[in-house]
Amino acid sequence: MDGRVVLTDSRVQHIRDVLRAEKGKRLRVGILNESLGVATVLEVTSKHVLLECEFDGAPPSRPTVDLLLAMPRPKVLKRLWSQFAALGVGRIFITNAEKVERYYFDTHVLDPDYYTKHLIEGLQQAGHPFLPEVQLIRDLKRFVESKTLDGVDQKLLFDPSGVVSLQDEVLGPNTYRDQRILLGIGPEGGWTERELLLFEKQGFDVLTLGPNILRTDTACVVLLGFFSLMKTCKKEA
Amino acid sequence: MDGRVVLTDSRVQHIRDVLRAEKGKRLRVGILNESLGVATVLEVTSKHVLLECEFDGAPPSRPTVDLLLAMPRPKVLKRLWSQFAALGVGRIFITNAEKVERYYFDTHVLDPDYYTKHLIEGLQQAGHPFLPEVQLIRDLKRFVESKTLDGVDQKLLFDPSGVVSLQDEVLGPNTYRDQRILLGIGPEGGWTERELLLFEKQGFDVLTLGPNILRTDTACVVLLGFFSLMKTCKKEA
Repeated sequence: MDGRVVLTDSRVQHIRDVLRAEKGKRLRVGILNESLGVATVLEVTSKHVLLECEFDGAPPSRPTVDLLLAMPRPKVLKRLWSQFAALGVGRIFITNAEKVERYYFDTHVLDPDYYTKHLIEGLQQAGHPFLPEVQLIRDLKRFVESKTLDGVDQKLLFDPSGVVSLQDEVLGPNTYRDQRILLGIGPEGGWTERELLLFEKQGFDVLTLGPNILRTDTACVVLLGFFSLMKTCKKEA
Repeated sequence: MDGRVVLTDSRVQHIRDVLRAEKGKRLRVGILNESLGVATVLEVTSKHVLLECEFDGAPPSRPTVDLLLAMPRPKVLKRLWSQFAALGVGRIFITNAEKVERYYFDTHVLDPDYYTKHLIEGLQQAGHPFLPEVQLIRDLKRFVESKTLDGVDQKLLFDPSGVVSLQDEVLGPNTYRDQRILLGIGPEGGWTERELLLFEKQGFDVLTLGPNILRTDTACVVLLGFFSLMKTCKKEA
């Protein structure tokens, strides 16, 4: 995949005006869903940029954390897409739930063109290549009972009603490291009794984050960041 | 401190319209910088709410994480205040830095009335009582050389230029648990060479968060959440 690339789209302006790259400057580059590398700028004009790219032999590892998120208010979700991509998440399931307002789904924020653009911005900014897969779930029951989650080792559902907190475990470097994890985060009003029973029946552990109750968006960022740090820290001897 | 309290301010509306609390309902309550407890609603009218409060004997422990944050764009900081308070932070130092635009400081977002309101919202939502102290730093050099940080055990500065990452440590449950920590997070363009030297001279460890480069606001939420989880998880035997 090494070689020369000519860019003629919006990246030309970014390279010229934000990165202020001139001939000879080295830039981080990536091929979506494949690999990362470094490019040397060979030419810059107002219309195009010519790069000489070298890609790493070993691509970074794919994220092994998935997110099941009850559809938040559209303006909250809007700000989350790029952060999800930057933090590294494999699959994002945005779901309906009893306490989700129906009109939340009538938003351009769930339009694939819209979120793909924001997800790619997050990847570009963080510097990794794996685009999260996004799936909208209209029927939560059918979804959790389906085979979609078969490959997941640990299904963790976060809800203030949980009697066990994530912190009740020894959160060591070997916790969850080699497992595929699904993080379930509820709507602002929480999951209903019926939903919690459904999750428990399907093998989810219902956990809290301790005494502090976090907003949905804060909880998403904290949890994705936490597992990403724990999964990449030094292993215990 | 137990006893009856009459509320007549904006909390009346919140209790009636959002919490939909009627006589007999139990609510979480707190006294700023003191303690948490539970209140029983005795009366609700459109003008007042009468509560019978019981406070916990042992107050929760004060946060032992401080934040040194290069002033971000005002609209980014605006959304962070309540999250800082919810995640639990002792002191927030908002600092000038070479790559911070001067006009960022001309914002109502730095007005104590403005941020105190948002900090208290974060405390109310998360359910803990300790209001972070906020200090604006105009002269970074004088600040880091002053005695303000004398009680801090670990000064961790996050910057993409760091050669060691937080993950290069075994991030076990006993890491940093009993220490007072300062987290330093730079401006969008990073700290300058001169600033990094200054920090290193004052005993800061310069760390990265691994290959992923996060936005300032994402990094703040991830790091405050991470240390709060690690500090409250079960101790290793």
